[in-house]
Amino acid sequence: MTAKPRFAVILSGCGVYDGAEIHEAVLTLLAIDRHGGSYQCFAPDRAQMHVINHLTGQEAAGESRNVLVESARIARGNIKSLADFNAAEVDALILPGGFGAAKNLCTFATQGPECQVDPATEKAVKAMAAAGKPIGALCIAPALLARIFGHGIDVTVGKDEGTAKAIVAMGAKHTEAGHGGVVVDKGRKVVTSPCYMLDSSISQIADGAENTVKALLTLMGR
Amino acid sequence: MTAKPRFAVILSGCGVYDGAEIHEAVLTLLAIDRHGGSYQCFAPDRAQMHVINHLTGQEAAGESRNVLVESARIARGNIKSLADFNAAEVDALILPGGFGAAKNLCTFATQGPECQVDPATEKAVKAMAAAGKPIGALCIAPALLARIFGHGIDVTVGKDEGTAKAIVAMGAKHTEAGHGGVVVDKGRKVVTSPCYMLDSSISQIADGAENTVKALLTLMGR
Repeated sequence: MTAKPRFAVILSGCGVYDGAEIHEAVLTLLAIDRHGGSYQCFAPDRAQMHVINHLTGQEAAGESRNVLVESARIARGNIKSLADFNAAEVDALILPGGFGAAKNLCTFATQGPECQVDPATEKAVKAMAAAGKPIGALCIAPALLARIFGHGIDVTVGKDEGTAKAIVAMGAKHTEAGHGGVVVDKGRKVVTSPCYMLDSSISQIADGAENTVKALLTLMGR
Repeated sequence: MTAKPRFAVILSGCGVYDGAEIHEAVLTLLAIDRHGGSYQCFAPDRAQMHVINHLTGQEAAGESRNVLVESARIARGNIKSLADFNAAEVDALILPGGFGAAKNLCTFATQGPECQVDPATEKAVKAMAAAGKPIGALCIAPALLARIFGHGIDVTVGKDEGTAKAIVAMGAKHTEAGHGGVVVDKGRKVVTSPCYMLDSSISQIADGAENTVKALLTLMGR
């Protein structure tokens, strides 16, 4: 094993309120690079649930944006459609958070434990699991893994009781974690970290992303 | 001097091709926080020059976005209009790069050395200089400082000959710099770093942002 570990990063737009949380996404890419890995970003080629004006917090009525096109902003254009994801070409998968993970990658934001997962996202996650390769998820993205895997999978979304309850309703186990903390489900090879589910400084987000990448590398035997 | 050093960060949208370069912006915020500073983001409340589809690299004809509203995505909503900038309330100013710095904060992208600077941006920069407070600029943003100050100010935009020539045409001096390098004009209290003006890894961008923040702290006597 001399080749660089290859990470796929699934983005869900560009901006905390309607897409991928930008700090979590960028600091995930930084952590991968700092620890000697390579990355390829992916996003589903579909319309966002909606567009939020991040200055006012209000919905921008009438505006429409595409998840892949907006995610390309974070990836500086170097991004692929999730339809082209191939688990054979990567060693680990990471899903940063932001409302996009709960609005565009699944419908958790509106339907809670009854949510549906975006088909391309579900296919990618299941392909990784079938190949025995590890998956990381930050912030609210673990909700999506709870929906896909259920059956006692151990994840964290920090300390938010309401969200933890919804996670448990989907058949998962919820373990609390603090700033920079990770919860590792060794059997399922799943690593989760609360990041901005807690009121955090940007340095604490960097810690969470870095600890997630380190735990994934450990699960890869590196 | 026990209080945290206060940094203002001027953003120019959200995305390398029509706004602030996202990695440079986020890693600037991280460097400030890691070195014990506090930050407040600002952006001009005006229309972007245009909108670029970051997947295709083509202009999104008919689309219109506001610099302050899009910058709010990077700032997670915690941002102020540059009209409300007060140099008395900050200790240093940083301008990350991205085409937004050359399209929305000034017209360098289209007019080169004959460019005009956004009035709110020029006012903020001049107020800092008048107060003897240091200013940092990454990537292409030093072009804007060359336009405002001219008269032999020493800056870097890396190793791009064409851009360096335009910088010199505005009366500035250009000094080459490599990955993570900074050029410090001690007399003018200006720190510049090439960042993505060079073909860089994200870790090298983190280095450039961190070295810029460190040099600014040194200029502040910290």
